[in-house]
Amino acid sequence: MRVFGIDCGTEFTGYGCVEMDEAARDPKLVRLVHGAVRLNKKESTALRLMQVHRELCELITLWQPDVVAVEEVFYSVNPKSALKLGQVRGVAILAAAGCGLGIAEYAPLSIKSAVVGYGLAKKEQVQYMVARLLNMDSIPEPADAADALAICICHIHTAQTLTQQNVGRK
Amino acid sequence: MRVFGIDCGTEFTGYGCVEMDEAARDPKLVRLVHGAVRLNKKESTALRLMQVHRELCELITLWQPDVVAVEEVFYSVNPKSALKLGQVRGVAILAAAGCGLGIAEYAPLSIKSAVVGYGLAKKEQVQYMVARLLNMDSIPEPADAADALAICICHIHTAQTLTQQNVGRK
Repeated sequence: MRVFGIDCGTEFTGYGCVEMDEAARDPKLVRLVHGAVRLNKKESTALRLMQVHRELCELITLWQPDVVAVEEVFYSVNPKSALKLGQVRGVAILAAAGCGLGIAEYAPLSIKSAVVGYGLAKKEQVQYMVARLLNMDSIPEPADAADALAICICHIHTAQTLTQQNVGRK
Repeated sequence: MRVFGIDCGTEFTGYGCVEMDEAARDPKLVRLVHGAVRLNKKESTALRLMQVHRELCELITLWQPDVVAVEEVFYSVNPKSALKLGQVRGVAILAAAGCGLGIAEYAPLSIKSAVVGYGLAKKEQVQYMVARLLNMDSIPEPADAADALAICICHIHTAQTLTQQNVGRK
Protein backbone atom coordinates (compact mmCIF):
# COMPACT_ATOMS: atom_id res chain seq x y z
CA MET A 1 0.00 0.00 0.00
CA ARG A 2 1.28 3.42 -0.98
CA VAL A 3 -0.24 6.50 0.68
CA PHE A 4 0.16 10.16 -0.23
CA GLY A 5 -0.49 12.43 2.77
CA ILE A 6 -1.34 16.13 2.57
CA ASP A 7 -1.26 18.63 5.43
CA CYS A 8 -3.02 21.74 4.10
CA GLY A 9 -1.93 25.22 5.10
CA THR A 10 -2.21 28.72 3.69
CA GLU A 11 1.56 29.24 3.72
CA PHE A 12 3.04 25.73 3.61
CA THR A 13 1.13 22.68 2.42
CA GLY A 14 3.09 19.65 3.56
CA TYR A 15 3.10 16.40 1.60
CA GLY A 16 4.63 13.01 2.01
CA CYS A 17 4.43 9.56 0.46
CA VAL A 18 4.91 6.35 2.45
CA GLU A 19 4.80 2.74 1.32
CA MET A 20 4.18 -0.47 3.24
CA ASP A 21 4.80 -3.75 1.51
CA GLU A 22 2.44 -6.09 3.36
CA ALA A 23 3.58 -9.08 1.32
CA ALA A 24 7.21 -8.76 2.47
CA ARG A 25 8.55 -11.19 5.08
CA ASP A 26 9.47 -8.28 7.36
CA PRO A 27 6.95 -5.53 6.43
CA LYS A 28 8.23 -2.05 7.12
CA LEU A 29 7.25 1.52 6.39
CA VAL A 30 9.31 3.22 3.69
CA ARG A 31 9.38 6.98 3.09
CA LEU A 32 9.39 7.76 -0.63
CA VAL A 33 9.27 11.55 -0.56
CA HIS A 34 8.37 14.47 1.67
CA GLY A 35 8.32 18.24 1.31
CA ALA A 36 6.06 21.26 1.20
CA VAL A 37 4.43 23.50 -1.36
CA ARG A 38 5.59 26.97 -0.28
CA LEU A 39 3.19 29.76 -1.08
CA ASN A 40 4.17 33.38 -1.50
CA LYS A 41 1.79 35.53 0.57
CA LYS A 42 2.35 38.41 -1.86
CA GLU A 43 0.80 36.41 -4.72
CA SER A 44 -2.94 36.58 -5.41
CA THR A 45 -5.21 33.90 -3.94
CA ALA A 46 -5.89 32.60 -7.46
CA LEU A 47 -2.19 32.11 -8.26
CA ARG A 48 -1.55 30.44 -4.91
CA LEU A 49 -4.46 28.01 -5.39
CA MET A 50 -3.25 27.21 -8.91
CA GLN A 51 0.25 26.52 -7.56
CA VAL A 52 -1.00 24.13 -4.83
CA HIS A 53 -3.24 22.30 -7.31
CA ARG A 54 -0.54 22.03 -9.99
CA GLU A 55 2.24 20.87 -7.64
CA LEU A 56 0.03 18.30 -5.91
CA CYS A 57 -1.22 16.97 -9.27
CA GLU A 58 2.37 16.57 -10.45
CA LEU A 59 3.47 14.84 -7.24
CA ILE A 60 0.48 12.48 -7.19
CA THR A 61 1.03 11.61 -10.85
CA LEU A 62 4.75 11.00 -10.17
CA TRP A 63 4.36 8.88 -7.03
CA GLN A 64 1.21 6.96 -8.07
CA PRO A 65 -0.24 6.33 -4.58
CA ASP A 66 -3.19 3.98 -3.96
CA VAL A 67 -4.94 6.53 -1.78
CA VAL A 68 -4.60 10.12 -0.52
CA ALA A 69 -4.97 10.93 3.18
CA VAL A 70 -5.66 14.37 4.63
CA GLU A 71 -6.10 15.80 8.10
CA GLU A 72 -9.62 16.59 9.23
CA VAL A 73 -9.82 20.21 10.08
CA PHE A 74 -9.29 21.71 13.41
CA TYR A 75 -12.39 23.83 14.00
CA SER A 76 -10.98 26.02 16.74
CA VAL A 77 -9.50 28.37 14.14
CA ASN A 78 -11.44 31.55 13.41
CA PRO A 79 -13.85 31.75 10.43
CA LYS A 80 -11.48 33.91 8.34
CA SER A 81 -8.61 31.41 8.71
CA ALA A 82 -11.02 28.49 8.21
CA LEU A 83 -12.17 29.97 4.92
CA LYS A 84 -8.61 30.46 3.65
CA LEU A 85 -7.61 26.98 4.77
CA GLY A 86 -10.78 25.61 3.15
CA GLN A 87 -9.78 27.12 -0.20
CA VAL A 88 -6.43 25.30 -0.11
CA ARG A 89 -8.11 22.12 1.11
CA GLY A 90 -10.65 22.32 -1.74
CA VAL A 91 -7.99 22.37 -4.45
CA ALA A 92 -5.94 19.68 -2.67
CA ILE A 93 -8.97 17.35 -2.58
CA LEU A 94 -9.67 18.22 -6.21
CA ALA A 95 -6.08 17.28 -7.17
CA ALA A 96 -6.49 13.86 -5.53
CA ALA A 97 -10.00 13.24 -6.86
CA GLY A 98 -8.96 14.38 -10.35
CA CYS A 99 -6.40 11.53 -10.35
CA GLY A 100 -9.23 9.09 -9.55
CA LEU A 101 -8.01 8.45 -6.01
CA GLY A 102 -10.03 7.89 -2.86
CA ILE A 103 -9.51 10.32 0.02
CA ALA A 104 -9.26 9.27 3.66
CA GLU A 105 -9.58 11.82 6.46
CA TYR A 106 -8.16 11.57 9.97
CA ALA A 107 -8.62 13.76 13.02
CA PRO A 108 -5.44 15.38 14.42
CA LEU A 109 -5.91 13.35 17.62
CA SER A 110 -5.97 10.07 15.69
CA ILE A 111 -2.87 11.00 13.72
CA LYS A 112 -0.85 11.93 16.80
CA SER A 113 -2.07 8.84 18.64
CA ALA A 114 -1.04 6.60 15.72
CA VAL A 115 2.46 8.09 15.57
CA VAL A 116 3.36 9.18 19.08
CA GLY A 117 0.82 7.18 21.07
CA TYR A 118 -0.50 10.39 22.60
CA GLY A 119 -3.19 12.56 20.97
CA LEU A 120 -1.91 15.85 22.35
CA ALA A 121 1.73 15.34 21.31
CA LYS A 122 3.76 18.39 20.34
CA LYS A 123 5.06 19.15 16.85
CA GLU A 124 8.63 18.15 17.79
CA GLN A 125 7.44 14.81 19.20
CA VAL A 126 5.62 14.06 15.94
CA GLN A 127 8.73 14.95 13.89
CA TYR A 128 10.94 12.75 16.13
CA MET A 129 8.62 9.73 15.97
CA VAL A 130 8.04 10.08 12.22
CA ALA A 131 11.82 10.05 11.70
CA ARG A 132 12.15 6.92 13.90
CA LEU A 133 9.23 5.02 12.36
CA LEU A 134 10.48 5.75 8.84
CA ASN A 135 14.12 5.06 9.73
CA MET A 136 15.20 8.52 8.60
CA ASP A 137 18.65 9.94 9.36
CA SER A 138 17.31 13.40 10.17
CA ILE A 139 14.14 15.06 11.42
CA PRO A 140 11.70 15.73 8.53
CA GLU A 141 11.42 19.44 7.77
CA PRO A 142 9.33 21.57 7.60
CA ALA A 143 6.96 20.40 10.34
CA ASP A 144 4.11 20.40 7.78
CA ALA A 145 5.94 17.68 5.81
CA ALA A 146 6.40 15.66 9.02
CA ASP A 147 2.65 16.02 9.63
CA ALA A 148 1.93 14.78 6.12
CA LEU A 149 4.14 11.71 6.72
CA ALA A 150 2.34 11.19 10.05
CA ILE A 151 -1.00 11.18 8.21
CA CYS A 152 0.35 8.45 5.88
CA ILE A 153 1.50 6.33 8.87
CA CYS A 154 -1.89 6.83 10.54
CA HIS A 155 -3.70 5.65 7.39
CA ILE A 156 -1.48 2.57 7.01
CA HIS A 157 -1.99 1.60 10.68
CA THR A 158 -5.74 2.14 10.45
CA ALA A 159 -6.02 0.18 7.20
CA GLN A 160 -4.02 -2.70 8.75
CA THR A 161 -6.29 -2.74 11.80
CA LEU A 162 -9.37 -2.74 9.57
CA THR A 163 -7.97 -5.63 7.53
CA GLN A 164 -7.18 -7.61 10.67
CA GLN A 165 -10.69 -6.98 11.97
CA ASN A 166 -12.16 -8.18 8.70
CA VAL A 167 -10.00 -11.30 8.79
CA GLY A 168 -11.11 -11.87 12.37
CA ARG A 169 -14.76 -11.68 11.38
CA LYS A 170 -14.49 -14.31 8.64
CA MET B 1 -17.49 43.90 -21.16
CA ARG B 2 -18.73 40.42 -20.28
CA VAL B 3 -18.69 39.31 -16.64
CA PHE B 4 -19.24 35.85 -15.16
CA GLY B 5 -20.43 36.03 -11.55
CA ILE B 6 -20.22 33.19 -9.03
CA ASP B 7 -22.02 32.99 -5.70
CA CYS B 8 -20.40 30.07 -3.86
CA GLY B 9 -22.40 27.80 -1.59
CA THR B 10 -22.10 24.29 -0.21
CA GLU B 11 -25.50 23.25 -1.60
CA PHE B 12 -26.15 25.64 -4.51
CA THR B 13 -23.41 27.60 -6.26
CA GLY B 14 -25.15 30.31 -8.27
CA TYR B 15 -23.71 31.62 -11.52
CA GLY B 16 -24.65 34.24 -14.06
CA CYS B 17 -23.19 36.01 -17.05
CA VAL B 18 -23.99 39.62 -17.94
CA GLU B 19 -22.76 41.75 -20.82
CA MET B 20 -22.58 45.51 -21.25
CA ASP B 21 -21.80 46.87 -24.67
CA GLU B 22 -20.22 50.23 -23.81
CA ALA B 23 -19.82 51.12 -27.49
CA ALA B 24 -23.57 50.92 -28.22
CA ARG B 25 -25.56 54.15 -28.62
CA ASP B 26 -27.87 53.09 -25.79
CA PRO B 27 -25.67 50.87 -23.57
CA LYS B 28 -27.66 48.37 -21.55
CA LEU B 29 -27.04 45.34 -19.41
CA VAL B 30 -27.87 42.03 -21.06
CA ARG B 31 -28.28 38.75 -19.18
CA LEU B 32 -26.70 35.88 -21.13
CA VAL B 33 -27.27 33.01 -18.71
CA HIS B 34 -28.00 32.26 -15.08
CA GLY B 35 -28.43 29.13 -13.00
CA ALA B 36 -26.92 27.12 -10.18
CA VAL B 37 -24.69 24.10 -9.72
CA ARG B 38 -26.78 21.89 -7.44
CA LEU B 39 -24.80 19.63 -5.15
CA ASN B 40 -26.07 16.42 -3.66
CA LYS B 41 -25.32 16.43 0.06
CA LYS B 42 -25.18 12.62 0.01
CA GLU B 43 -22.16 12.68 -2.34
CA SER B 44 -18.62 12.78 -0.97
CA THR B 45 -16.88 16.15 -0.62
CA ALA B 46 -14.44 15.13 -3.36
CA LEU B 47 -17.22 14.38 -5.88
CA ARG B 48 -19.02 17.61 -5.03
CA LEU B 49 -15.87 19.69 -5.49
CA MET B 50 -15.16 17.95 -8.79
CA GLN B 51 -18.71 18.72 -9.96
CA VAL B 52 -18.47 22.44 -9.09
CA HIS B 53 -15.07 22.73 -10.77
CA ARG B 54 -16.15 20.84 -13.91
CA GLU B 55 -19.45 22.69 -14.38
CA LEU B 56 -17.88 26.12 -13.82
CA CYS B 57 -15.02 25.33 -16.22
CA GLU B 58 -17.55 24.29 -18.88
CA LEU B 59 -19.69 27.42 -18.37
CA ILE B 60 -16.71 29.79 -18.40
CA THR B 61 -15.36 28.12 -21.55
CA LEU B 62 -18.81 28.37 -23.18
CA TRP B 63 -19.54 32.02 -22.28
CA GLN B 64 -16.01 33.39 -22.69
CA PRO B 65 -16.24 36.25 -20.16
CA ASP B 66 -13.57 38.95 -19.82
CA VAL B 67 -13.47 38.60 -16.05
CA VAL B 68 -14.93 36.53 -13.20
CA ALA B 69 -16.45 38.22 -10.15
CA VAL B 70 -17.10 36.56 -6.79
CA GLU B 71 -18.55 37.62 -3.48
CA GLU B 72 -16.13 38.31 -0.65
CA VAL B 73 -16.94 36.06 2.20
CA PHE B 74 -19.19 36.85 5.02
CA TYR B 75 -17.13 36.09 8.12
CA SER B 76 -19.98 35.84 10.58
CA VAL B 77 -20.50 32.19 9.66
CA ASN B 78 -19.01 29.60 12.03
CA PRO B 79 -15.57 28.05 11.33
CA LYS B 80 -17.04 24.70 10.20
CA SER B 81 -19.29 26.38 7.60
CA ALA B 82 -16.47 28.75 6.60
CA LEU B 83 -14.20 25.77 5.91
CA LYS B 84 -16.81 24.01 3.75
CA LEU B 85 -17.60 27.22 1.89
CA GLY B 86 -13.86 27.85 1.46
CA GLN B 87 -13.45 24.46 -0.23
CA VAL B 88 -16.10 25.35 -2.83
CA ARG B 89 -14.65 28.85 -3.22
CA GLY B 90 -11.17 27.39 -3.77
CA VAL B 91 -12.25 25.23 -6.70
CA ALA B 92 -14.40 28.06 -8.14
CA ILE B 93 -11.41 30.44 -8.11
CA LEU B 94 -9.26 27.66 -9.60
CA ALA B 95 -11.80 27.20 -12.44
CA ALA B 96 -11.62 30.91 -13.30
CA ALA B 97 -7.84 31.19 -12.91
CA GLY B 98 -7.34 28.00 -14.94
CA CYS B 99 -9.08 29.77 -17.86
CA GLY B 100 -6.58 32.62 -17.53
CA LEU B 101 -9.16 35.08 -16.21
CA GLY B 102 -8.76 37.78 -13.58
CA ILE B 103 -10.94 37.54 -10.48
CA ALA B 104 -12.66 40.53 -8.88
CA GLU B 105 -14.09 40.32 -5.37
CA TYR B 106 -16.91 42.39 -3.90
CA ALA B 107 -18.27 42.63 -0.38
CA PRO B 108 -21.95 41.69 0.07
CA LEU B 109 -22.70 45.28 1.12
CA SER B 110 -21.20 46.68 -2.11
CA ILE B 111 -23.15 44.20 -4.24
CA LYS B 112 -26.49 45.01 -2.61
CA SER B 113 -25.76 48.74 -2.74
CA ALA B 114 -24.94 48.52 -6.45
CA VAL B 115 -28.16 46.66 -7.26
CA VAL B 116 -30.76 47.79 -4.73
CA GLY B 117 -29.14 51.01 -3.50
CA TYR B 118 -29.21 49.66 0.05
CA GLY B 119 -26.48 47.45 1.54
CA LEU B 120 -28.78 45.52 3.86
CA ALA B 121 -31.38 44.66 1.22
CA LYS B 122 -33.23 41.35 1.52
CA LYS B 123 -32.87 38.43 -0.86
CA GLU B 124 -36.26 39.16 -2.50
CA GLN B 125 -35.32 42.80 -3.09
CA VAL B 126 -32.09 41.71 -4.82
CA GLN B 127 -34.02 39.25 -7.01
CA TYR B 128 -36.60 41.91 -7.92
CA MET B 129 -34.02 44.57 -8.81
CA VAL B 130 -31.83 42.13 -10.77
CA ALA B 131 -34.89 41.19 -12.86
CA ARG B 132 -35.68 44.89 -13.50
CA LEU B 133 -32.11 45.93 -14.32
CA LEU B 134 -31.69 43.02 -16.71
CA ASN B 135 -35.16 43.46 -18.21
CA MET B 136 -36.15 39.90 -17.33
CA ASP B 137 -39.75 38.66 -17.54
CA SER B 138 -39.53 36.71 -14.30
CA ILE B 139 -37.61 36.73 -11.03
CA PRO B 140 -34.27 34.86 -11.41
CA GLU B 141 -34.30 31.59 -9.48
CA PRO B 142 -32.75 30.22 -7.35
CA ALA B 143 -31.75 33.20 -5.20
CA ASP B 144 -28.08 32.12 -5.55
CA ALA B 145 -28.32 32.70 -9.32
CA ALA B 146 -29.85 36.16 -8.70
CA ASP B 147 -26.93 36.89 -6.36
CA ALA B 148 -24.48 35.84 -9.07
CA LEU B 149 -26.16 38.20 -11.55
CA ALA B 150 -26.05 40.95 -8.90
CA ILE B 151 -22.26 40.39 -8.56
CA CYS B 152 -21.94 40.88 -12.35
CA ILE B 153 -23.95 44.13 -12.23
CA CYS B 154 -21.84 45.35 -9.31
CA HIS B 155 -18.63 44.66 -11.24
CA ILE B 156 -19.87 46.44 -14.38
CA HIS B 157 -20.96 49.50 -12.35
CA THR B 158 -17.67 49.57 -10.47
CA ALA B 159 -15.62 49.20 -13.67
CA GLN B 160 -17.61 52.02 -15.31
CA THR B 161 -17.03 54.29 -12.33
CA LEU B 162 -13.32 53.50 -12.40
CA THR B 163 -13.16 54.25 -16.13
CA GLN B 164 -14.98 57.56 -15.67
CA GLN B 165 -12.62 58.48 -12.84
CA ASN B 166 -9.65 57.68 -15.06
CA VAL B 167 -11.11 59.77 -17.90
CA GLY B 168 -11.70 62.60 -15.43
CA ARG B 169 -8.06 62.51 -14.35
CA LYS B 170 -6.66 62.82 -17.87
